[in-house]
Amino acid sequence: MSSFPRPIQHLIESFQKILPGVGPKTAERFALALVRKNAPEVKALVDAIAAAKNGIMTCQVCFDFTEATPCVVCADPRRDGASLCVVAKPQDILALEKTGAYKGKYLVLGGLLSPIEGRTPDQLKIKELAERVQKFAPKEIILAFDSTMDGEATVLYIKHMLAPLKIHVTRLARGLPMGSDLEYADEITLTDAIQGRRDV
Amino acid sequence: MSSFPRPIQHLIESFQKILPGVGPKTAERFALALVRKNAPEVKALVDAIAAAKNGIMTCQVCFDFTEATPCVVCADPRRDGASLCVVAKPQDILALEKTGAYKGKYLVLGGLLSPIEGRTPDQLKIKELAERVQKFAPKEIILAFDSTMDGEATVLYIKHMLAPLKIHVTRLARGLPMGSDLEYADEITLTDAIQGRRDV
Repeated sequence: MSSFPRPIQHLIESFQKILPGVGPKTAERFALALVRKNAPEVKALVDAIAAAKNGIMTCQVCFDFTEATPCVVCADPRRDGASLCVVAKPQDILALEKTGAYKGKYLVLGGLLSPIEGRTPDQLKIKELAERVQKFAPKEIILAFDSTMDGEATVLYIKHMLAPLKIHVTRLARGLPMGSDLEYADEITLTDAIQGRRDV
Repeated sequence: MSSFPRPIQHLIESFQKILPGVGPKTAERFALALVRKNAPEVKALVDAIAAAKNGIMTCQVCFDFTEATPCVVCADPRRDGASLCVVAKPQDILALEKTGAYKGKYLVLGGLLSPIEGRTPDQLKIKELAERVQKFAPKEIILAFDSTMDGEATVLYIKHMLAPLKIHVTRLARGLPMGSDLEYADEITLTDAIQGRRDV
């Protein structure tokens, strides 16, 4: 016996294949924990997987996950259609909504441009963004991306693409995060904080 | 919208509940990755979970995971019944089997005694170990536990329990692991290495 019984091995491989960032050791831990759980608990997980897979679709307006298209936000007449916030992924909408600071509409690109990972505009909803902007002519487009190289590249690409339309394109502010020590801030963050200083 | 659609939330909670060491953020990552996968991939995972849960039982002799009881090792007449290796969990058998250095039988305790976590002998297969030893009278019992406080406690408990039977009880050697620097070894390891020194 130099490996687990076949069904366990198979489950370990399945976990590795489908769950992001899960290597052989973690997948093994998951599989063995699952085998130890009682049947109703395991059934609850299987049902939850099936329900999520079958009950979730992509909103055809903003490309967020939703139970019905258009999604709640897109269908809400109180949301300001003059403002369009472009994000990389659904989680980013959630984070922004939690702030309560934004009342406009959204569009999910499905990722960020990445020369290194070879993610090009045709793999994202860039074309759809251009179409939506031309059709609905929002007053402002907020690019709410990660403060990373990929985020930067995507900001530049979209800014260039939308330049002929003369729309107000903004990006999230950069600077010291709340609760951080100036002393330990990296140089780029500190440079951003200085350049973006505001009146008090 | 201040949370994901209900089926996704539910899956996130399910993952957190059933997978060990998975917090809200990791569970979220898993759930969203799963929703993005295509239907056959998700079905493959669901099938693998069901197969592992339904196809795996506990060997009634050694308490290892198995597809049929007694398991392959217990049923193998070439394995030496005079030697019984006691381990905490099925993964430990796998690790030992990979060495090819052991040809005896096994017994899985189902954990280690832990005063801190409140794991007592009646929660482990301690009684079953005593019964098996009395019934089959192996010549040697190898206690192959983690080199931790809990492992230590379990060694002492079993040693004490088996003392009246006058059986040869051994434990795994302790010392410098392969590839380690003496300079960076902790004091306990180094003490073990000195006390356990061998002729060359």
